[in-house]
Amino acid sequence: MKLSSVKNVSKKIGLPPGSLVHIGNHISETTSVSLLKYSADSIEELSISSPKECSDHITDGYITWINVTGLSDVNTIGDIGKNLGMHPLILEDILNTSHRAKIDDSDEYISIIIKVLNYNEKDSIIEREQVSIILGDGFVATFQEKKSDIFNGLISRLQHPSSRLRNMKSDYLVYAIIDTIVDNYFALIEHIGDKVESIENMLFESADSSILNEIHNLKREMIFLKKSLWPLREILSSLQRSDSSLIHSSTSMYFRDVYEHIIQILDTIESLRDVLSGMTELFISISGNRMNEIMKVLTIISTIFIPLTFIAGVYGMNFRHMPELESTWFYPWFLYSLMLAIVFGMLAFFKNKKWL
Amino acid sequence: MKLSSVKNVSKKIGLPPGSLVHIGNHISETTSVSLLKYSADSIEELSISSPKECSDHITDGYITWINVTGLSDVNTIGDIGKNLGMHPLILEDILNTSHRAKIDDSDEYISIIIKVLNYNEKDSIIEREQVSIILGDGFVATFQEKKSDIFNGLISRLQHPSSRLRNMKSDYLVYAIIDTIVDNYFALIEHIGDKVESIENMLFESADSSILNEIHNLKREMIFLKKSLWPLREILSSLQRSDSSLIHSSTSMYFRDVYEHIIQILDTIESLRDVLSGMTELFISISGNRMNEIMKVLTIISTIFIPLTFIAGVYGMNFRHMPELESTWFYPWFLYSLMLAIVFGMLAFFKNKKWL
Amino acid sequence: MKLSSVKNVSKKIGLPPGSLVHIGNHISETTSVSLLKYSADSIEELSISSPKECSDHITDGYITWINVTGLSDVNTIGDIGKNLGMHPLILEDILNTSHRAKIDDSDEYISIIIKVLNYNEKDSIIEREQVSIILGDGFVATFQEKKSDIFNGLISRLQHPSSRLRNMKSDYLVYAIIDTIVDNYFALIEHIGDKVESIENMLFESADSSILNEIHNLKREMIFLKKSLWPLREILSSLQRSDSSLIHSSTSMYFRDVYEHIIQILDTIESLRDVLSGMTELFISISGNRMNEIMKVLTIISTIFIPLTFIAGVYGMNFRHMPELESTWFYPWFLYSLMLAIVFGMLAFFKNKKWL
Amino acid sequence: MKLSSVKNVSKKIGLPPGSLVHIGNHISETTSVSLLKYSADSIEELSISSPKECSDHITDGYITWINVTGLSDVNTIGDIGKNLGMHPLILEDILNTSHRAKIDDSDEYISIIIKVLNYNEKDSIIEREQVSIILGDGFVATFQEKKSDIFNGLISRLQHPSSRLRNMKSDYLVYAIIDTIVDNYFALIEHIGDKVESIENMLFESADSSILNEIHNLKREMIFLKKSLWPLREILSSLQRSDSSLIHSSTSMYFRDVYEHIIQILDTIESLRDVLSGMTELFISISGNRMNEIMKVLTIISTIFIPLTFIAGVYGMNFRHMPELESTWFYPWFLYSLMLAIVFGMLAFFKNKKWL
Amino acid sequence: MKLSSVKNVSKKIGLPPGSLVHIGNHISETTSVSLLKYSADSIEELSISSPKECSDHITDGYITWINVTGLSDVNTIGDIGKNLGMHPLILEDILNTSHRAKIDDSDEYISIIIKVLNYNEKDSIIEREQVSIILGDGFVATFQEKKSDIFNGLISRLQHPSSRLRNMKSDYLVYAIIDTIVDNYFALIEHIGDKVESIENMLFESADSSILNEIHNLKREMIFLKKSLWPLREILSSLQRSDSSLIHSSTSMYFRDVYEHIIQILDTIESLRDVLSGMTELFISISGNRMNEIMKVLTIISTIFIPLTFIAGVYGMNFRHMPELESTWFYPWFLYSLMLAIVFGMLAFFKNKKWL
Repeated sequence: MKLSSVKNVSKKIGLPPGSLVHIGNHISETTSVSLLKYSADSIEELSISSPKECSDHITDGYITWINVTGLSDVNTIGDIGKNLGMHPLILEDILNTSHRAKIDDSDEYISIIIKVLNYNEKDSIIEREQVSIILGDGFVATFQEKKSDIFNGLISRLQHPSSRLRNMKSDYLVYAIIDTIVDNYFALIEHIGDKVESIENMLFESADSSILNEIHNLKREMIFLKKSLWPLREILSSLQRSDSSLIHSSTSMYFRDVYEHIIQILDTIESLRDVLSGMTELFISISGNRMNEIMKVLTIISTIFIPLTFIAGVYGMNFRHMPELESTWFYPWFLYSLMLAIVFGMLAFFKNKKWL
Repeated sequence: MKLSSVKNVSKKIGLPPGSLVHIGNHISETTSVSLLKYSADSIEELSISSPKECSDHITDGYITWINVTGLSDVNTIGDIGKNLGMHPLILEDILNTSHRAKIDDSDEYISIIIKVLNYNEKDSIIEREQVSIILGDGFVATFQEKKSDIFNGLISRLQHPSSRLRNMKSDYLVYAIIDTIVDNYFALIEHIGDKVESIENMLFESADSSILNEIHNLKREMIFLKKSLWPLREILSSLQRSDSSLIHSSTSMYFRDVYEHIIQILDTIESLRDVLSGMTELFISISGNRMNEIMKVLTIISTIFIPLTFIAGVYGMNFRHMPELESTWFYPWFLYSLMLAIVFGMLAFFKNKKWL
Repeated sequence: MKLSSVKNVSKKIGLPPGSLVHIGNHISETTSVSLLKYSADSIEELSISSPKECSDHITDGYITWINVTGLSDVNTIGDIGKNLGMHPLILEDILNTSHRAKIDDSDEYISIIIKVLNYNEKDSIIEREQVSIILGDGFVATFQEKKSDIFNGLISRLQHPSSRLRNMKSDYLVYAIIDTIVDNYFALIEHIGDKVESIENMLFESADSSILNEIHNLKREMIFLKKSLWPLREILSSLQRSDSSLIHSSTSMYFRDVYEHIIQILDTIESLRDVLSGMTELFISISGNRMNEIMKVLTIISTIFIPLTFIAGVYGMNFRHMPELESTWFYPWFLYSLMLAIVFGMLAFFKNKKWL
Repeated sequence: MKLSSVKNVSKKIGLPPGSLVHIGNHISETTSVSLLKYSADSIEELSISSPKECSDHITDGYITWINVTGLSDVNTIGDIGKNLGMHPLILEDILNTSHRAKIDDSDEYISIIIKVLNYNEKDSIIEREQVSIILGDGFVATFQEKKSDIFNGLISRLQHPSSRLRNMKSDYLVYAIIDTIVDNYFALIEHIGDKVESIENMLFESADSSILNEIHNLKREMIFLKKSLWPLREILSSLQRSDSSLIHSSTSMYFRDVYEHIIQILDTIESLRDVLSGMTELFISISGNRMNEIMKVLTIISTIFIPLTFIAGVYGMNFRHMPELESTWFYPWFLYSLMLAIVFGMLAFFKNKKWL
Repeated sequence: MKLSSVKNVSKKIGLPPGSLVHIGNHISETTSVSLLKYSADSIEELSISSPKECSDHITDGYITWINVTGLSDVNTIGDIGKNLGMHPLILEDILNTSHRAKIDDSDEYISIIIKVLNYNEKDSIIEREQVSIILGDGFVATFQEKKSDIFNGLISRLQHPSSRLRNMKSDYLVYAIIDTIVDNYFALIEHIGDKVESIENMLFESADSSILNEIHNLKREMIFLKKSLWPLREILSSLQRSDSSLIHSSTSMYFRDVYEHIIQILDTIESLRDVLSGMTELFISISGNRMNEIMKVLTIISTIFIPLTFIAGVYGMNFRHMPELESTWFYPWFLYSLMLAIVFGMLAFFKNKKWL
């Protein structure tokens, strides 16, 4: 993730508001536009020669889904925007992929900016992609940073004439898109939950401080995940309660369902953060305890030998008059008895004190 | 508990909303339906041959309690749902046992999803089961993940013609069901409180780091418990203030009573979490202190012997001219006096410094 | 305190709501009822032969204070309740002494459940007793767990014909009762404040880890105290703003005064908790520092002697050709100069490094 | 500060509400009353012979400022209170100097209780004094615990006929009094900010644990400061929005200004607390690091000498057949080479490991 | 930053409210006034001879931007204020640069006080400058502490006749000014994000406690940054919802855009604080672990040699009857075998225990 949310925005400093500049990482992705026009009876994929044709395909009785992938061609995006009658600030937000998730509810359309989050197994990072959704009268426009297969399931569901998607208005398509994205969050959270659990199992086995680093990284991911998803509460709550004519009361219950999923995800993130905080604390004290145990044993070994060495030193002194030295039996008695007595005495003392 | 709340949801990704898929652990439990039909005057248990018969048994002047156990037979559940006129999203929620507790207040029925929590002594884990309650006009339908004896007390109370249950409407039955579940929470919390106390008593006696693990586990249980129970506040507060025609004003005071129990439980969970946090801190510093004491004593022993060993080393030197070595009385005087003086001098010094 | 708030509730599991079961510790206390009937002009103590007589003594123009002590006789309490027209749930709450403080504002009476807290010097614990107050038209009923002298001051004030108590309505008596209980909280908090201060003074003098335990206990007491007193905010705020005909506008200012006392108490509890948290931290680091100092001095002593012992060891070697050993003046010079030089050199080095 | 906020209140337990008892520390200060009567045209200082004369000096077209210093003479205060028509509870609050800051907005007057905070350089404590302000129609009464010069600037401004004070109503005088007190808070906070900075500079230089104590004291001061000032938000916000006829709309902007100062002070207190928390942590880890460094160096010294001592010990053994001992050149070679090799080898190893 | 927010305010204590005193650091900067008058058709820079001329240049159909730099000349500022009809309290706030960001919405103008934050690379501190913006009918007045180039981009955009700035009202100019300042915050946050990342990379490489100091400084900067920017939420939210006739509905969407930027910045600050807190914890435990590892190795070295030294000491004793000493082969066998056996035995034991 790498704190990317605060990056690249400075590129825009000094430009007038509404300036179309693409701020993002997938800058090389070429822009392509695809149209899907459907009603309860028919569905067809359309190709357009110019971005200015978009609005020609929006007809009464049909829903047109305009899907734009790749944000590098600022002019094309600008043309589509003008063609669909969008406010320059909305276009600016679509291109600025470091933007916070948001909703704008104007009279003619509702624009939603939302993040798709994917766990990249290879690099162990969470990839973030921005999807902008414009809900207008009879059409839905989506803008993705790059081609992805996230909406494939949706498109194949659209092929079934009996599917609810085909029989509802454009607001239901927006719901289905958001629901797909939110289901992705569940997969991500589940993945993170697995990682937390596997780290938890390692806590009591290993003292490797790389665990600490992994916990730290997960914690940071949680911080930024929460920051990314928090605005969705507001977005879905305002979709659900919207009095815009674009949102029909029959769809509003579906938005409420997604709203509750978001609450559940945010709760889980919060809980995982709490668990991770507890784990840091636990790791530190377990590894502290383990180290203390080692030092204690080492120190006990030294402590046992130091008095013995002293006694050996005493009888290594060169005094002329040390009667003990003359005695034949003093040496073995001394060595085998006194010293062993000291050793076992100390061990018994330590045992008694519960230091061993 | 094992973070299970985020598990298995991914199974549903890509399916259209309202798809009936059972997400849960008790997947093998067969689905069975039992009916209890009662009024102030009579009570009878009914058996049905097909899920589509349910609505036939709902008659004016009687309350019918349809209890479904086992969620594996998705078709049966779907048929019951259609038969009772439930929205597909509600059915989906009933089958998804990883769902957050929630309430849905539509015109025709109120649906409540709630968790039953049981402490499993054998495995030392909290078992969680989802119970969905549908309150309709003249009937209450409950969906449990598996057969359990939690409602036995309720059913035996229903047998008494004079019981308040028999003389109130279906909303009072819903209250009684929720009250039974909430009373179970009290037992769970009481159990956890006992464990916290018993760990607290061990804190000052043992330095075993397994205590830390137990505290960590309890803390994590508290985190997920709070997450599970938090939505109940909202649910009961909205039941109590509901202006649905299904909730009568005479029952609303009972819902308020349960609401207050929930608040009390949440307060207690919060307090226990605070106490547990204090205990981790306390354990770490007590065991740190104890270890420090041990190291101090060991180091004092070494420190006393090291100068003595040095003195012995001095008189072990082989210099030709060391007049002390020739003296007859120097050795005993030296050994018994100087060294003892050093030992007692150091001990006195340490005592004076309050190191001993 | 011993987490008692979550205890004994399980006794009730499985019973129908409104079942009168006494949940509490003072179970052996016999139930006795006393009546005090007063107006501006007269006051008399009444004795009743049966609990069903209570309502006979409630007359216009007089205020009757029915004080019940001891909750063991469930039937008597039930009879009084029925006699005064109380809802079964209220009676259940009065008997369940593990209940959270609460207020119920029905049309005919206002019931308040509140805790009396006393510091038991002997056992160093906070004793908790539940007092339930029922404010009806022309009467106030109080239910205490056991006989106590907490209301003696109030009763003696009632004897003075000119006291405000005698000249106001029954709501003022309720105010006076709550005010007495809240004044008790101040005494308790003052007592705890003294203990905090005395522990604070010990922090810099002693390293005994029993201090940690005392801080931990005080912290836990604060957690449960806050939990106990928090609901009082709501209770007094709702008394003050009540539009019940039982609360007169002239009394409402008095309730506001108590409300502010409660806020002040809760603020103080919060502050004391913060101070106690700081003290744990302080104790741990002071005692860590002190231990470190000791270890440092001990290690410095060893470090000074170890090179000396090495030098003594060198001249204790048995090489045939060690010219130094033959020299007459080498031994004293060596012993008194070289070694002293090493000792003072090391001490100077440590001093210079500010290790001493 | 010494947790004084919870002290001395118990003196009142058992007394009826509204009892006039002085609770405070400046109990010996005699009570004196001074009057200042002014209009746009004139100003005169008045002396009164009896507290009951106060109201005689309140005339239309003039503003009378009654300043009472010293709260020991309860009767005088009571007489002034009755004379000005104040509620007994207000008088009780004025005399109880452990009271929380508060505002009471009755029909005839507004009473404000506020704390003056002064930093006592000599004893390094924050002194707290209570000032009560009564704003009535045409008069302002202030009650101070003791004579102080805090209002001198205000009084000298009143002497200028052109000052805004002389040309506004009594509510502006109240504003000016509160503003003076709040300006004092800024001085206090500035002083504390200086102390925090000077401690911060010492953190990296000294390991003296008295720093920890100073941080702890500052933190505690912050806790109680916040507790003291927090109610001012509410007080000033309610003054600013008051619809009392005593507050004129032209003054309300001034109250808003003070309100914002209070917010700024509270923000700063919060920030300073956060900084102080960071400093404790920093101190503990810096001093821990420093101690670790010392122990490391000492241990390295021991570790270098211990193998050397062992080698010396080997050649101090009395075996008959130790050929090395016979060699003439072995001793100097051994001493000057092998041992130096070991020393430099170990130093290089430690250096390589970055332990030195 | 140096806690400067609480500095210099005491200079004002005792002065009447509304006194014009400049409180700030750039006190020597001379005051200069520049005027920019523009409409959709024309733009001209004006010079004025006296501050009292300002209002003469405000004409219908034109927007006049009065930019004042340097706040030292209190009289000039006072004259401009009076000339534009500003309230004395607003002028006081403009001159008091330690003031909290705020908005004042009077009937005739809206005044906004806001902070410009710049990262000073050289001294590694955040420089703070106050900018006050007065939005009146047909004019905008800005007051800066010193000359800066922050508005240069804005001024050059104003030169283009087709720019939106030229075609909108004065409220859009205010928006553009605030937007420029907020863009600056993004640059600052981005800069801090870079620093956090670079410190994070150092955490695992170095144990230098200066890292701790850097983290502490960043944390403190975050605390004060949050404190500085927090009021902007309120300011922009009130601009966006303002019903003042000075704010046109077409501009309100732009203010909402800035509002969301502020929310994003505050979220990022909060996240960075959380990350920094995690880093302190991580650093402390990593460096603790590293130190423990060192001590462990050193202690192991000592522990291995201490028994060897003891054995050498035993055979250095001068007992007459020590048969081993006479043996020819005992010495080499003893030295090369027994001692090596002990060494390898201990190493194997430590390895087995995973201490090495």
